[in-house]
Amino acid sequence: MTKNMVKNAAGRIVPTEINGKKVIPYQGVGKYKPDYRKFSPRVATCADYPEDGNKVVPDLKTALLKAGLKDGMTISTHHHFRDGDLIVNEIFKIASEMGVRNLVWFPSASFPCHEPLIKYLEDGTIHHIEGSMNGPLGVFVSEGKMKGTGVLRSHGGRYQAIQDGEVQIDIAILAAPTADAFGNANGVNGPSACGLLGFALADSQYADKVIIVTDNLVDFPCLPWQIHGNYVDYVVRVDKVGIPEKIVSGTTRITKSPDRLLIAEMTAKLCWEAGLIREGYSFQAGAGGISLAISDYFAKYQRENSITASFARGGSNKYLVEMLEEGLVKYILDGQTFDLEGVRSMRENPKHQDTSPFTSYNYHSKGNFASFIDIAILGATEVDINFNANVNTHSDGYLLHGIGGWQNCLFGRNVILPIPLFRNRIPIIRDEVTTLTGPGELIDIIVTERGIAINPRRQDLLDKLKNSQLPIKTIVELKEEAERICGKPQKPQLTDEVVAVVKWVDGTVIDSVYKVKT
Amino acid sequence: MTKNMVKNAAGRIVPTEINGKKVIPYQGVGKYKPDYRKFSPRVATCADYPEDGNKVVPDLKTALLKAGLKDGMTISTHHHFRDGDLIVNEIFKIASEMGVRNLVWFPSASFPCHEPLIKYLEDGTIHHIEGSMNGPLGVFVSEGKMKGTGVLRSHGGRYQAIQDGEVQIDIAILAAPTADAFGNANGVNGPSACGLLGFALADSQYADKVIIVTDNLVDFPCLPWQIHGNYVDYVVRVDKVGIPEKIVSGTTRITKSPDRLLIAEMTAKLCWEAGLIREGYSFQAGAGGISLAISDYFAKYQRENSITASFARGGSNKYLVEMLEEGLVKYILDGQTFDLEGVRSMRENPKHQDTSPFTSYNYHSKGNFASFIDIAILGATEVDINFNANVNTHSDGYLLHGIGGWQNCLFGRNVILPIPLFRNRIPIIRDEVTTLTGPGELIDIIVTERGIAINPRRQDLLDKLKNSQLPIKTIVELKEEAERICGKPQKPQLTDEVVAVVKWVDGTVIDSVYKVKT
Repeated sequence: MTKNMVKNAAGRIVPTEINGKKVIPYQGVGKYKPDYRKFSPRVATCADYPEDGNKVVPDLKTALLKAGLKDGMTISTHHHFRDGDLIVNEIFKIASEMGVRNLVWFPSASFPCHEPLIKYLEDGTIHHIEGSMNGPLGVFVSEGKMKGTGVLRSHGGRYQAIQDGEVQIDIAILAAPTADAFGNANGVNGPSACGLLGFALADSQYADKVIIVTDNLVDFPCLPWQIHGNYVDYVVRVDKVGIPEKIVSGTTRITKSPDRLLIAEMTAKLCWEAGLIREGYSFQAGAGGISLAISDYFAKYQRENSITASFARGGSNKYLVEMLEEGLVKYILDGQTFDLEGVRSMRENPKHQDTSPFTSYNYHSKGNFASFIDIAILGATEVDINFNANVNTHSDGYLLHGIGGWQNCLFGRNVILPIPLFRNRIPIIRDEVTTLTGPGELIDIIVTERGIAINPRRQDLLDKLKNSQLPIKTIVELKEEAERICGKPQKPQLTDEVVAVVKWVDGTVIDSVYKVKT
Repeated sequence: MTKNMVKNAAGRIVPTEINGKKVIPYQGVGKYKPDYRKFSPRVATCADYPEDGNKVVPDLKTALLKAGLKDGMTISTHHHFRDGDLIVNEIFKIASEMGVRNLVWFPSASFPCHEPLIKYLEDGTIHHIEGSMNGPLGVFVSEGKMKGTGVLRSHGGRYQAIQDGEVQIDIAILAAPTADAFGNANGVNGPSACGLLGFALADSQYADKVIIVTDNLVDFPCLPWQIHGNYVDYVVRVDKVGIPEKIVSGTTRITKSPDRLLIAEMTAKLCWEAGLIREGYSFQAGAGGISLAISDYFAKYQRENSITASFARGGSNKYLVEMLEEGLVKYILDGQTFDLEGVRSMRENPKHQDTSPFTSYNYHSKGNFASFIDIAILGATEVDINFNANVNTHSDGYLLHGIGGWQNCLFGRNVILPIPLFRNRIPIIRDEVTTLTGPGELIDIIVTERGIAINPRRQDLLDKLKNSQLPIKTIVELKEEAERICGKPQKPQLTDEVVAVVKWVDGTVIDSVYKVKT
């Protein structure tokens, strides 16, 4: 074991220090108890802010200068524009031109549109990224090219890290579809409306300096004020703050693949047979093709049996909005809009509530609602025979995905991973996952096109389904079936150099991501 | 000068220590700059809270026991039910029966309905009150009967004190007209709807333990969630949480007194002539009889001249709601509803926005909107020849009123005090105020039935009104006129014992309140 590496409670080898700061190894679900106080931002005074409330400065560079941008600072941004973000690359372009070095970028997520940041990672403007490193940035990190170590957190873990002072944001730059000169801002109005700004809430509350960037400056008061101007230092007007059409990232249509439709159908049937689809139940389904198909099946069961869901957790999309408008769900509690129908519904319908990682996911809180969602439908790149799952790396070791709300949703009452048994002839079920993102004790059911595995910890579900015609097997049976078809999968070719770590929801380190051999 | 007393920047003698804690004397408007960080509440963990989100306990006593109620704790409550509060007396009855002693009561305001607390102040259950001590409690304090020293703060100053850690709340007990079992709560729905819960926001964010008390427990999610359950420890259901009809406290009808109508008419005329009533202007007017009449005159000027106000600041009432519904004001930014029409409007109309002392009044913030209100109409019990004003004590020295939002509103662009020249033959304009609540440099205009005085600092207003037919005089002329009619007023008969202090918006001590000679 390398110096400063320890084995954590999940049996994974993790560093005890990351980017020069001590970290705590994962101790098990609910085992690590924080014994400290929240991070304290500086107390401001109105005496230092304009009496007329006008915080507008001419441009982003001026705002960054006034905010005191300098070497080594932590710069945060949100990802509500997803692949349509127009501000992040601009921030680091300015920083690079100013000769500022060794910044930490702390996004709530990154997207392929951020590929241009690679040059700032290379030229020393950015030291490292704490946030999801997807696609091109993931490849860059996996190949060991980033100076610092990447830190991956769930959406809730990001709130926790800010609240707890693990990450201290020097400057938050928050793109806002609508804002007033005081800095009140929202995501539901304006030509670039993207829905909400919940991922920016912690940044606004805890960052030392907060800059709002908008292309729709309105008279005070900007309502709803999803972000309060009372947290804001400067407001910048730009021509275009983001491309809302590009919030439609990834698959947002119901799958047409027969295998995947079968998975969706079996998942819904299982939920129905296990009695999970009942009056007042709640569910979370993502925006992927299988998930959308599952929601659609849920809707059918509900219609046929006159069942109303108490709430559905979004990522909202047109399918979920239709369920709300049809009265099949009473409320959507929405963390991010995945299409423009979601944006419209949130703007118009008070039963489509915007949420933030504080209300939904923060584990260092007096509870959060992730734990009372009845059915949580999630994905995975790999699952092992103990139901441990990976969402970050592929089986070749490459870091290609962020965590999103995935870890947080594991606290749902019934966590189901509907996944194909293999992808590109690579089996998904492994003896051991390449990267551990979430512990198996929180994962209840794996649904594949060739069978369903139920976690033996859920004897209650096994009992309820004992007379089912569904193809319920053991997870080892599923693994063996995949291997019979695809052959035994090869291990990824990794070095022992840690290029990133995966944090658990409580800020402890659950696993390491290693440099791939290239 | 007594030991531990100093003269502050306003020339008032104030203690340097209150209830055993060091305090800072007032240093002038905008002069005291905080150089510290916000108070840090303890970090909680979901591992310690019920997974199903059900925080309901059988009764208030159980909740207080679980919250660890013990001697010397600080107990906070809000006053959205005003004189219809039903919970506060119950809290201290339980505490007294449990034998708990030396509590600090930290309400956002107190009302005559809290007179029963006198017995708990006498028997040692309550050590002292930090909050407004009106009516019977004020008399009790003024006569030197409270064990500790009272501390009066503005609504904004209360948020500041909590945020800055000056007051550390051990248990917040928050009456809520609607709540779910997780603790999400609001004031707009339910049989006891009182409008909003903004005064409880800081308590929820910063208290160590938070108890929600409701008579309308609804299914999750309770929306709107004006208070987030993520801050809440326990939820208690009671038969009746408050009497909403009694939020109609004090005068909430337009005055019929000819003198007061004259004051209102002159105030509105002055605002019109000075060009303050113009397209997009904003105003704050209270719920007193003169204020309501002034709003009514504003409405007339607006109608006659097709002027729309950008927003009105409430305390809302039916008159203001009518202006909103007529389109004379675009938004109401409401801190507390003063009647049931205000409650209805807030529930139904998204342009009737609930606010909190954080958004509206906190001086230790990156600005707040009190400073961009064009016309702030406020009251006073006394004004001196330097425009300093008193809202707390009467001229006999008795502490009979809280500060409310009064100090915070002084930051408005044009602060007008429409007040009678004398009350019960006691002149209002004095050589020196009995208690200094707000410095004269922030008070622009005094309007009395016998003349108007404009602060000489406002040469711009004097210039604009130089050809006016309004009876503009000097404040000394007004004082002399009152004294010609009523005689020179007597000084209050006070001892040198400090029974309470008045804090400025920044937490410094602006004046002392002395025990009266009885």
